Amino acid sequence: MHITEEVKKRSKMVNGLAEELLPVAQPEELYLASRHLMEAGGKRLRPAMLILATEAVRGDVQKVLPAAFSIELIHNFTLIHDDIMDQDILRRGYPTVHLKWGLPAAILAGDTLYSKAIEILAGVDAPPDRVVRCLNILSKTCTEICEGQWMDMMFEGLPKVSEAEYMKMVKKKTGMLFAAAMSIGGILGGCDKKEAKALWEFGKTMGIAFQIRDDVLDLITPEEELGKDRGSDLMGGKKTLVRIHAFEKGIKLGHIKRGASKEDIDAAVQALHNAGSIDYAMEKAQQLVVQGKTKLDVLPDSRAKELLKELADYMVTRTY
Amino acid sequence: MHITEEVKKRSKMVNGLAEELLPVAQPEELYLASRHLMEAGGKRLRPAMLILATEAVRGDVQKVLPAAFSIELIHNFTLIHDDIMDQDILRRGYPTVHLKWGLPAAILAGDTLYSKAIEILAGVDAPPDRVVRCLNILSKTCTEICEGQWMDMMFEGLPKVSEAEYMKMVKKKTGMLFAAAMSIGGILGGCDKKEAKALWEFGKTMGIAFQIRDDVLDLITPEEELGKDRGSDLMGGKKTLVRIHAFEKGIKLGHIKRGASKEDIDAAVQALHNAGSIDYAMEKAQQLVVQGKTKLDVLPDSRAKELLKELADYMVTRTY
Repeated sequence: MHITEEVKKRSKMVNGLAEELLPVAQPEELYLASRHLMEAGGKRLRPAMLILATEAVRGDVQKVLPAAFSIELIHNFTLIHDDIMDQDILRRGYPTVHLKWGLPAAILAGDTLYSKAIEILAGVDAPPDRVVRCLNILSKTCTEICEGQWMDMMFEGLPKVSEAEYMKMVKKKTGMLFAAAMSIGGILGGCDKKEAKALWEFGKTMGIAFQIRDDVLDLITPEEELGKDRGSDLMGGKKTLVRIHAFEKGIKLGHIKRGASKEDIDAAVQALHNAGSIDYAMEKAQQLVVQGKTKLDVLPDSRAKELLKELADYMVTRTY
Repeated sequence: MHITEEVKKRSKMVNGLAEELLPVAQPEELYLASRHLMEAGGKRLRPAMLILATEAVRGDVQKVLPAAFSIELIHNFTLIHDDIMDQDILRRGYPTVHLKWGLPAAILAGDTLYSKAIEILAGVDAPPDRVVRCLNILSKTCTEICEGQWMDMMFEGLPKVSEAEYMKMVKKKTGMLFAAAMSIGGILGGCDKKEAKALWEFGKTMGIAFQIRDDVLDLITPEEELGKDRGSDLMGGKKTLVRIHAFEKGIKLGHIKRGASKEDIDAAVQALHNAGSIDYAMEKAQQLVVQGKTKLDVLPDSRAKELLKELADYMVTRTY
């Protein structure tokens, strides 16, 4: 079975929990707005990784499913709020929550997902000291996601950002939630501290590689596959690793406004190709994957461990 | 010592934790924005009540101080996001966070306070099963606050709202956090389930009475004392208990726009007075206070219990 099928198998277990853990309660529209992005799709990579982490430490998968669902809620909460901040209008091929329901509703929908995620994790069937550790990890993670999103937005207004600053930002914004998913899966599965740390490191590294690939896909993927505007990062002035490399090479992309023509976007992408910036970013992501996989050495050999390694490769080979 | 002095004594214990529990970390502006409203003031009623609940069950006050701080963070998180939704520009006499830092920053500042609150509560020095119960209560509370805020906004667009609907909304929007503060103070202080339930009920009732008084104060307090626009609820079309009573009496206030003149506001307030709507709301709040105080009967007599009763009276006598 291909790794994407393995992910799908696990994502189905998580999707099945929506009716029980996030029912459409009153006020109905609030819950419809909260569920909108989750129903629109998503790869469910984070919950799948949480489940794989539990499998890898021989924990009880059934018991951690609510935690996996909780991680996906946190992910969706950050997407709803980020879409407001980035003024994005499309996500997963659907209108963003603030476009469909308005700004106040989108703020509340995000806040509601956040609350539900904590509530669900606090209700997981595991020893209370382990639950508290997981809640600690998840809340710290959310703080770092806020810090990372802030940095990302600040960077848009700066003429120059270093690779080190980018790596710090992306670790917070994306790496931490993958790290949290892995370590929570391990901790609830009963692993020891050394394993939890290794799972956390693996997750963090995968998250960074995932984000670098995401930035590249934003440039090279046809719009109909992307589910949102192609080159939206270019238009937003986002400091991606690709752009940072190009800047250091002396490539001037000029100012690409929102609503720029397809031709302007194509020309900018071509310039980034020619400068070797896209290749550079992909090599960096590849290195992270190699490095991340070594963290799994502390785990006993298992099918789940192999799948995590395949998933690591998928982070940089995926086309959507 | 007057009850306000007793509250102040406890609020000082909580304020003293800001440097340790919410330091100005990086990115600095994110943390300055997050701390802005807390530094602008506030009565710290919720943390003071949490501490009094701990005292009333003879728990260790020093150990629950971080939880009290955490409750105040949740309160401030909701204020920051509510101010965006309600388009308010003044709070506690200072510009609101979104006015000073912009919309994206205000969303993130709120999210950060929320994360920090959970993190701090998860780190409280208490048996893990009690900590998990408290996190469960707090996260459920936050969901209900979102539901309440949603209802409050929806009500603005409705021609008529019943008193029962108002009571349900205000229980969620304001009552639940007072209830959470009281029960968390009790649970961390070591109380039994019956006491926790009574503290929760007391807190809920106090919160509703507090909100009714708040709505009245918005109408009758001079602007310089209020720290925000007088009659802002009238301008926003908020369905307060005062307004619902007036509507049932057949009083038509007409549409009071944002930026309405002082004369228009005065005339509307006078009409509400004449209809007996302000008196009606205050009587309702008074009844709630009487009813709420009986919930404390399950607790052993103590100085803290007496102070909680005094605080109950203060909910409806306070002038700011």
